Amino acid sequence: MNDADGRPMTTAFVPGHITGFFSTHPDPEPAAAGSRGAGLALSDGVTVTVSRGAGTRLNGDSVEIAAVDHVIDHLGVEATVDAETSLPLGAGFGVSGAMALGTALAANAAFGCHRTENELVEIAHCAEVEAGTGLGDVVAQARGGLPIRLEPGGPRHGALDGLPARPRIEYLTFGELSTETVLAGDTDRLSAAGEAALDELLAEPTAEQFLRSSKTFAEDAGLLTDDVRDAITAVEQAGGQAAMAMLGRTVFALGTGLSAAGYEPAVCRTDAAGGRLVDVEDS
Amino acid sequence: MNDADGRPMTTAFVPGHITGFFSTHPDPEPAAAGSRGAGLALSDGVTVTVSRGAGTRLNGDSVEIAAVDHVIDHLGVEATVDAETSLPLGAGFGVSGAMALGTALAANAAFGCHRTENELVEIAHCAEVEAGTGLGDVVAQARGGLPIRLEPGGPRHGALDGLPARPRIEYLTFGELSTETVLAGDTDRLSAAGEAALDELLAEPTAEQFLRSSKTFAEDAGLLTDDVRDAITAVEQAGGQAAMAMLGRTVFALGTGLSAAGYEPAVCRTDAAGGRLVDVEDS
Repeated sequence: MNDADGRPMTTAFVPGHITGFFSTHPDPEPAAAGSRGAGLALSDGVTVTVSRGAGTRLNGDSVEIAAVDHVIDHLGVEATVDAETSLPLGAGFGVSGAMALGTALAANAAFGCHRTENELVEIAHCAEVEAGTGLGDVVAQARGGLPIRLEPGGPRHGALDGLPARPRIEYLTFGELSTETVLAGDTDRLSAAGEAALDELLAEPTAEQFLRSSKTFAEDAGLLTDDVRDAITAVEQAGGQAAMAMLGRTVFALGTGLSAAGYEPAVCRTDAAGGRLVDVEDS
Repeated sequence: MNDADGRPMTTAFVPGHITGFFSTHPDPEPAAAGSRGAGLALSDGVTVTVSRGAGTRLNGDSVEIAAVDHVIDHLGVEATVDAETSLPLGAGFGVSGAMALGTALAANAAFGCHRTENELVEIAHCAEVEAGTGLGDVVAQARGGLPIRLEPGGPRHGALDGLPARPRIEYLTFGELSTETVLAGDTDRLSAAGEAALDELLAEPTAEQFLRSSKTFAEDAGLLTDDVRDAITAVEQAGGQAAMAMLGRTVFALGTGLSAAGYEPAVCRTDAAGGRLVDVEDS
């Protein structure tokens, strides 16, 4: 497609991604660095439109997002990135990863970069790793569904599986947690808890076990905040299941867990497709 | 979900899959056997509903589909499979692969088999290989999009990539070709042509190059039928691009290729998600 001035313009949609638990696996090579763990790709996501120009906007505001800049530099294009999302920012929904992957997909199409999907996912994954803003969101967002990161890294190094389910998801955010701060701190305890949670999930690969393993992880990793703990307890007292999104002061639940407990959550589904180009014929 | 009698009942959707070119890679282990090549996952597909019982129906008619039986046996369930599709049968759309994968996804959910997505894809892939009805459809149908089969086999052995595009697709079928007969014959010439086509596509990974490589493959492999050749020529004379679906007397085109040449084709899009559970909330 072209914009009103006839310049190439392409739009991609990338699902939000909630990580329930993870372990960190640093590596000198960004394409091999990453995380193991599991999460949910959400039908609420980020729409990224790329055209010729410069500068990045998020919901109409100019922003600096290092991962997006890295993607543009790597592809060697001069691009304006215009992103729209209803997802909370800095609260564990993988918005920076979605912007990096959406920029890669849309810029490749707009500027004829002739990369494959794996190559674009690797570019966006490396951009996130180099920016220090994420380790596993991009590969999960590219896959869609309920992704399990079996092995860390981009497509050439990592390995993915998924839970065959399509639950309704409710979520509620109390505020931000800094991914950079947590990832820059002592991650040994966190990673031990993440490895244990992954073993548990692979022994019983269901959405319900994913919630149980995620809740245990948040406690064992020492990341649970009081507001999130209170909400999880309230959901459980109402007969539901909830856990904490990594990394944000965000609680998520299966089905009607939060609304049954009296909250007014955002509601979405899992997104089966993962990051993809969209156009007017899709809407 | 339950059916009217309260029995568990689950539905999956699996996209149709057109293979443009391929090479065959037999292996004593079905999970390692498969094909390399590239194709299109179609928004036209097969809806598979599984409940307790026995017997398989396709568009209301009782059918025997060996790959479906293998999946049911492997999961150890007693299941009725009810499949609906608008796709032509035996004409290169991967209907048997879609039924195998849809049965695996839906039966796992209906009967609580606790398999991961990779495990279900492997079960369906092996069922197709053992039945002799397909080598690469299942892994492509599980992935969605425009799948490139880089390495043959199920998820533990194979490797996939994809073309980052979402073209409109038109198709038209003149009749059946037997997959079993072609795969049981001399596949050396076919596989040499398939390997050459894959190299070409990876050098320029675009939808347009996929059509060019697919057309060359059909000629070089000696599979092009006169009716399909005539239709491809007509599309090209009208300024479009078309190729032959493997394995069927089916022509497919990008965009409005067939309709611009005066045909009345079926029209769909590529399906970005691949095989997935569906339920009433999706419709």
